[in-house]
Amino acid sequence: MLKDTVRTKTYQNVIYQNKFLFKDKVVLDVGAGTGILSLFCAKAGAKHVYAVECSLMADMAKEIVQVNGYADVITVLKGKVEEIVLPVPHVDIIISEWMGYFLLFENMLNTVLYARDKWLITDGIVLPDKASLYLTAIEDSEYKEDKIEFWNNVYGFNMSCIKKQSMMEPLIDTVDQNQIVTNCHLLKTMDISNMTSGDAAFTAPFKLVAERNDYIHALVAYFDVSFTKCHKFMGFSTGPRSRGTHWKQTVLYLEDVLTICEGEELVGSMTVSPNKKNARDVDIVLQYSLTGQRCRVSRTQHYKMR
Amino acid sequence: MLKDTVRTKTYQNVIYQNKFLFKDKVVLDVGAGTGILSLFCAKAGAKHVYAVECSLMADMAKEIVQVNGYADVITVLKGKVEEIVLPVPHVDIIISEWMGYFLLFENMLNTVLYARDKWLITDGIVLPDKASLYLTAIEDSEYKEDKIEFWNNVYGFNMSCIKKQSMMEPLIDTVDQNQIVTNCHLLKTMDISNMTSGDAAFTAPFKLVAERNDYIHALVAYFDVSFTKCHKFMGFSTGPRSRGTHWKQTVLYLEDVLTICEGEELVGSMTVSPNKKNARDVDIVLQYSLTGQRCRVSRTQHYKMR
Repeated sequence: MLKDTVRTKTYQNVIYQNKFLFKDKVVLDVGAGTGILSLFCAKAGAKHVYAVECSLMADMAKEIVQVNGYADVITVLKGKVEEIVLPVPHVDIIISEWMGYFLLFENMLNTVLYARDKWLITDGIVLPDKASLYLTAIEDSEYKEDKIEFWNNVYGFNMSCIKKQSMMEPLIDTVDQNQIVTNCHLLKTMDISNMTSGDAAFTAPFKLVAERNDYIHALVAYFDVSFTKCHKFMGFSTGPRSRGTHWKQTVLYLEDVLTICEGEELVGSMTVSPNKKNARDVDIVLQYSLTGQRCRVSRTQHYKMR
Repeated sequence: MLKDTVRTKTYQNVIYQNKFLFKDKVVLDVGAGTGILSLFCAKAGAKHVYAVECSLMADMAKEIVQVNGYADVITVLKGKVEEIVLPVPHVDIIISEWMGYFLLFENMLNTVLYARDKWLITDGIVLPDKASLYLTAIEDSEYKEDKIEFWNNVYGFNMSCIKKQSMMEPLIDTVDQNQIVTNCHLLKTMDISNMTSGDAAFTAPFKLVAERNDYIHALVAYFDVSFTKCHKFMGFSTGPRSRGTHWKQTVLYLEDVLTICEGEELVGSMTVSPNKKNARDVDIVLQYSLTGQRCRVSRTQHYKMR
């Protein structure tokens, strides 16, 4: 994950280029991993950093902090944020890299919100403090053929029942920006400083307008995160027009191939909610309709991220 | 996995081109997945096929068997091989795709051997019936730098304690055949028809002779499987000189960079054993020494596949 340079470099720049935010402040790093964000904060002048990590990586983080000479500034706490005892009553800053695929799949957002409500001072800051989910539509005949239609004839056998299932599983993959057929629509912005965990479940309408005559095989979701408390705007996008990250994009194949003409509108809504049995899984309901010259479709599809 | 065409096509060819083996025979498919091997066997004329699959995929396999019109020939049994009740006392053929990364990591070999001992008739056949593990040595300066030396300086911090750990984890990756510096040495052949589960733990000596002046950064392990009961030889290799498979190769980085001259010998032994706590994990001990003109090294390294 450290090798995702878009991600790590953005955090590094946010911290190193905004030392005024960190000077003499107490920082909590939620899900610290190797401790890299804590090290950035310590180097930027934080008074103290509490790095919370529940996996075995916490032991590595302790060693790394020691080896790099920050043992007096960074305290690694091995355990769950919900269970650890923080040695101070409050923190000034919470930093975390909590985002999952599709922003919300297997994410740590609830843990960040828990820490915010428990320890962050009034006027304290959360980094990043904004996350937005976007939707666009793509032409993807080649890959849909490979990934979905494949099941119609597998070495001579009909396995189309697996096709039904694989249609329901959003695919994490890199989309070429030339495949984009419509505008990109902002579905939802989350304000990490003020939201509640319930706000991560939502229904958002969308309107995607075709920018050329083409076919639509899939909708594609991606997210941006931003750090609005910096001296100037900082953040990164995981969209198909930006430099690749390990999050790639999330592709939701449509049952129909939509024949869309330039200027026509694909309208609908996306409902996102944590799965009731396992809150780290995500259920997505996509409702869409196109009333075009060459194609009229109205459909509801269900997807599950497991 | 079906999309690994080297793998699936080999099984398909073995079955379709050797119908004499299957005609009127009772077949057991161990770990049937989608049921593809069972379908091949049914189409090749098997009297009956029992497809055992313990995952949810068993339900799909039942539907696939039905849809393709083989419900009277293939019986899908959902459950563990060790727990199911087979409706017949004996089978003539056991077919399975049981191989894991490095042949033995998370493999199903023990399950195949269990089924063989419980149900296979005398003179019955196991497909595949031979599996061999090979070792060679590669130059890999670029990747070792990326994957291992990376930890020496991670965004300005020393994380070399992670390097120690990552050295112990064999890497599953595709090796370019031009990286190969020595001959390929056969470490061990397993005879699936006759071996016991204990035979999957072994120590094998090796001698790798440099074919050019070069550096050695890693040893590479890979395997072949073969079906010796066919009319003519059939099988496939997962080696770096063969067409790629999802198994790729297994790269074991060395602590030392070996400066080896053409004709010099890297000698040693590899010990492979299931992990004592989790038998699906594999422990590897590599002992090697080079007494060359430009480099003298003797070392023992431990690796864990988790």
